[in-house]
Amino acid sequence: MTLTIGIDVGGTKVAGGVVDETGKVLVHARRDTPAEDVAKTRDVITDLVSELAAGRSIEAVGVGAAGWIDASRSTVLFAPNLAWRDEPLRDYVSNKSGLPVIVENDGNVAAWAEFRHGAARHADDSMVMFTIGTGVGGGIVLGGELVRGAHGIAAELGHMLTVPDGHQCGCGRLGCIEQYASGSALVRFARAAARQEPNRAAALLELAGGEAEAITGPMVTAAAKGGDPVSIEVFAQVGRWLGTSLADMAQILDPQVLVVGGGVIEAGDLLMGPTRRSYLESLAQRSRLPVAEIRPAELGNRAGVIGAADLARRM
Amino acid sequence: MTLTIGIDVGGTKVAGGVVDETGKVLVHARRDTPAEDVAKTRDVITDLVSELAAGRSIEAVGVGAAGWIDASRSTVLFAPNLAWRDEPLRDYVSNKSGLPVIVENDGNVAAWAEFRHGAARHADDSMVMFTIGTGVGGGIVLGGELVRGAHGIAAELGHMLTVPDGHQCGCGRLGCIEQYASGSALVRFARAAARQEPNRAAALLELAGGEAEAITGPMVTAAAKGGDPVSIEVFAQVGRWLGTSLADMAQILDPQVLVVGGGVIEAGDLLMGPTRRSYLESLAQRSRLPVAEIRPAELGNRAGVIGAADLARRM
Amino acid sequence: MTLTIGIDVGGTKVAGGVVDETGKVLVHARRDTPAEDVAKTRDVITDLVSELAAGRSIEAVGVGAAGWIDASRSTVLFAPNLAWRDEPLRDYVSNKSGLPVIVENDGNVAAWAEFRHGAARHADDSMVMFTIGTGVGGGIVLGGELVRGAHGIAAELGHMLTVPDGHQCGCGRLGCIEQYASGSALVRFARAAARQEPNRAAALLELAGGEAEAITGPMVTAAAKGGDPVSIEVFAQVGRWLGTSLADMAQILDPQVLVVGGGVIEAGDLLMGPTRRSYLESLAQRSRLPVAEIRPAELGNRAGVIGAADLARRM
Amino acid sequence: MTLTIGIDVGGTKVAGGVVDETGKVLVHARRDTPAEDVAKTRDVITDLVSELAAGRSIEAVGVGAAGWIDASRSTVLFAPNLAWRDEPLRDYVSNKSGLPVIVENDGNVAAWAEFRHGAARHADDSMVMFTIGTGVGGGIVLGGELVRGAHGIAAELGHMLTVPDGHQCGCGRLGCIEQYASGSALVRFARAAARQEPNRAAALLELAGGEAEAITGPMVTAAAKGGDPVSIEVFAQVGRWLGTSLADMAQILDPQVLVVGGGVIEAGDLLMGPTRRSYLESLAQRSRLPVAEIRPAELGNRAGVIGAADLARRM
Repeated sequence: MTLTIGIDVGGTKVAGGVVDETGKVLVHARRDTPAEDVAKTRDVITDLVSELAAGRSIEAVGVGAAGWIDASRSTVLFAPNLAWRDEPLRDYVSNKSGLPVIVENDGNVAAWAEFRHGAARHADDSMVMFTIGTGVGGGIVLGGELVRGAHGIAAELGHMLTVPDGHQCGCGRLGCIEQYASGSALVRFARAAARQEPNRAAALLELAGGEAEAITGPMVTAAAKGGDPVSIEVFAQVGRWLGTSLADMAQILDPQVLVVGGGVIEAGDLLMGPTRRSYLESLAQRSRLPVAEIRPAELGNRAGVIGAADLARRM
Repeated sequence: MTLTIGIDVGGTKVAGGVVDETGKVLVHARRDTPAEDVAKTRDVITDLVSELAAGRSIEAVGVGAAGWIDASRSTVLFAPNLAWRDEPLRDYVSNKSGLPVIVENDGNVAAWAEFRHGAARHADDSMVMFTIGTGVGGGIVLGGELVRGAHGIAAELGHMLTVPDGHQCGCGRLGCIEQYASGSALVRFARAAARQEPNRAAALLELAGGEAEAITGPMVTAAAKGGDPVSIEVFAQVGRWLGTSLADMAQILDPQVLVVGGGVIEAGDLLMGPTRRSYLESLAQRSRLPVAEIRPAELGNRAGVIGAADLARRM
Repeated sequence: MTLTIGIDVGGTKVAGGVVDETGKVLVHARRDTPAEDVAKTRDVITDLVSELAAGRSIEAVGVGAAGWIDASRSTVLFAPNLAWRDEPLRDYVSNKSGLPVIVENDGNVAAWAEFRHGAARHADDSMVMFTIGTGVGGGIVLGGELVRGAHGIAAELGHMLTVPDGHQCGCGRLGCIEQYASGSALVRFARAAARQEPNRAAALLELAGGEAEAITGPMVTAAAKGGDPVSIEVFAQVGRWLGTSLADMAQILDPQVLVVGGGVIEAGDLLMGPTRRSYLESLAQRSRLPVAEIRPAELGNRAGVIGAADLARRM
Repeated sequence: MTLTIGIDVGGTKVAGGVVDETGKVLVHARRDTPAEDVAKTRDVITDLVSELAAGRSIEAVGVGAAGWIDASRSTVLFAPNLAWRDEPLRDYVSNKSGLPVIVENDGNVAAWAEFRHGAARHADDSMVMFTIGTGVGGGIVLGGELVRGAHGIAAELGHMLTVPDGHQCGCGRLGCIEQYASGSALVRFARAAARQEPNRAAALLELAGGEAEAITGPMVTAAAKGGDPVSIEVFAQVGRWLGTSLADMAQILDPQVLVVGGGVIEAGDLLMGPTRRSYLESLAQRSRLPVAEIRPAELGNRAGVIGAADLARRM
């Protein structure tokens, strides 16, 4: 049985694991991310690789990170949460570890993990995944392969136009889906609702110590599950927007399955119900035809390690 | 040298041609479409095939038609301009002609033609094409192959959401791009503008005999080329919307090249200028990275015959 | 006690009444509207006036009609449902009846009736009323007087912009509130929802004999009251849009009270609940300040007669 | 001839003047605003009043300030740029000066000045004014009187909904006109355009020392006047939005005249042209009827002093 290592470089933690070909994580390790320091971040990665590889026969290493990766999967062109700019990460890790290395965008890694070993493992050809974190990431699989793009930057699903002249996105455009169907949007909607209707949002505000500005995503999830009407509506609002973008993906790519991942899916049907409703309404024309089912992701925050390791296996 | 036949079934004409492997149309023929009569439409196709095949060694036949084609490329599930419903067109034509047959959606056919022999022939991997006719069709090539979708219905680019709660689309959804960047939209915008500002639109109205309701797409093109300010603005309006959808495709698929086809491109830079401007504005974030160039289609209305014939060659 | 006559000219019926100064309708009469015939419509009005005036001491006559009335309240410039164009209605009725006559827009008449004797009778200074029929009409009272406008055409509240580039309005503009918060919009939303989700909309579809296209406004009201989820959502949708326009009126005019009238208010809290919620959300900034309360109209279809008669009294 | 004093309390300067009944400013004075200090700001006002009143027979004092004024025009409920909260300004200034005092919102003051002595002085009944500064203020005159609202807060024209789910406004709502047609919006649009197309925006960027983030409103005006295409487009963009809101005011209030004031009007036809075009397009339905003309304000930054003084005269 061959083993590979997957590394998931986040803004606060670097996670790593030794993964077998069934997607099982045999060993797991984790370090803090020294995000502002390029050299230290590289060293945390190589330390983690050597720790995980010690005493094992490892075939290859996959590294996933938020950011733009060049088309050859060797260089991180830009990473929003890290100091990396045109960072030749593949060669650095490969030289240090003596192993073949692949670098991949985190949204692609998560999608690949779900396609191979998670919510879309029954699909053999195509899937699209939205990862709803602070922002919105994406990954696309067609013909059994990740769609990486001519310049390496495909599946930037968070920056599809949703509301012309809408809310300013960090990318400079007005009205990207990331401003309406992300964790940040969920919190923004919830804070606004709590300021406007403090009495109706009493349960949510209590979790936040009475301060609308202190509301976080997990608080909205907890309050929604407890029946707080404002939190339930906020998830429905996010779900409506998300459903329209999923419908766009069905129109454009007609995949076998659509997957939604990220912390927000802990809200379960409070998010997925409105999402599916909006999706089906948007696809009115297709009511006579089969369309992709929407599934919640299954691998949680292990997807980064599993997907990176599996991509390494396929080099 | 092998030859194949391409058939392009439109709402008013059925065109056919014998095409060689360089995309050259050696013989061309054309018939009226008896659109309301399922059996007669089939017979026009088979007559045309036997006429074109007579005395030649033909390898295969490709048929392109507006509509939804099933995933096996044999059955027309639904054709908006014809009476076909679940029509087993492939077997019918194959039985009559004794040749292998493939059936394909017209947007896909046009995209394939441009990818192989037209505006995107320099691309070896990926392209996305918008065909702007009465409606908006699309075709996507990735990894050197058409993206057909898990249910056969990919690349329905006309039905991406553009304006939430916007103009009612024939598909039942509000605000599809087809309502803002199609030939119908161009005419709708032009008529509205001519009603509102008859003096400024004098040149356009003169072409239409003074009647705003009589304005057609070719009139808008002619007037715009002649300097009519209202017609120029109307093309700019369509171009702005089109540019945002092209930007969405760059974000989602990051193809090598983007192609715009259909009758509207006869307006040249009057359409393509505002389209490119809007596209680049929408991709602000990517200004540091290379993005796909937007090119006008090159094959005009021969794309249907050329693309269908080339797809037949690849069966 | 002085008496006046109010005439309410609708597209299908002409209603008339003798009204006292408390707003009580002492006698009521009604005729069919010969809508396509200018002369006959005038005669129905004058016949009705002479019937109602017979044997009574009448001071004046007020006539309300859908359409644009000139600033002197004597001429109907344009009536969408009748053949009148620049019709000098005041002088005609006055000459025939020997009584002073005033002509007023129907939205203004209804608003005046509610201000004087209906939902806003406690207000002494200002109110704004939206009348939600097939379209959206309006009336504004400020300083205890109707706002008629410099050219006689104020309070065309149905044509405030709501969705830029939105659904085409009959007025030529895209995205007027009339396309989102009218009876027609309610029916359009309901039909679309029933086509998309026939199972969920079963109760509504049953009322319409199984045909989405046969759904009418009263059916949606009946189904919503009976618990049909699709009909309930459709009223909520209309209410959300209506609430945003009511909020605009609070921002612009800060009236004492806002009134919503028309057939849709029979849905009660199914409409008014979402309307009020949307209104308060839109006025987030004002949460520290008092704002106008939203009330349902109280006079129903008698408002036209009562308001016209009361305006006549005040000439 | 009677004289009154007008005081214009801005975020950085307090201006004052002695004004005669023709609107002429006989004496003018100005101080810095100690914005963060409630007591000092009051004292600057009373010092200025006593300086201006010295040796003259003054009838009354008018004070204009950004913020919400209570319905009795005595208390500043909230002032966005000053520390005032429920500040009983009228009584304070009246007690110190021994003169009658009126306090009024700055948008209302400017509108009143233009109605009486500026761009709308030919109107005897009604006008609506938009003041385009950092934000968007407004003032409405109907029946020859300012519309102050039942709770004192009418004419908050900056907070009309323009883009549903649009750009976040400081008021908590998404998509207010203030986010699209204000000086801040102009600068936001210009900076975004300069980042995206630095070459086309070269002239503008040169004024800003090469830094998009250093672009200010006056720079955009100067560059537009000098022919910079990006700056010209940015004014056109603001004008298009402004025109739709002016059209809404024509639909709602049908005033005699519409006035646009604020620093942006220095751009002249570069702003007013697109504004008028958008206004007329939005009023398509009314093409057969007269509508209010749009005029640029004439009194510039003296409007605050002149309007406040004139309102004081009318107590």
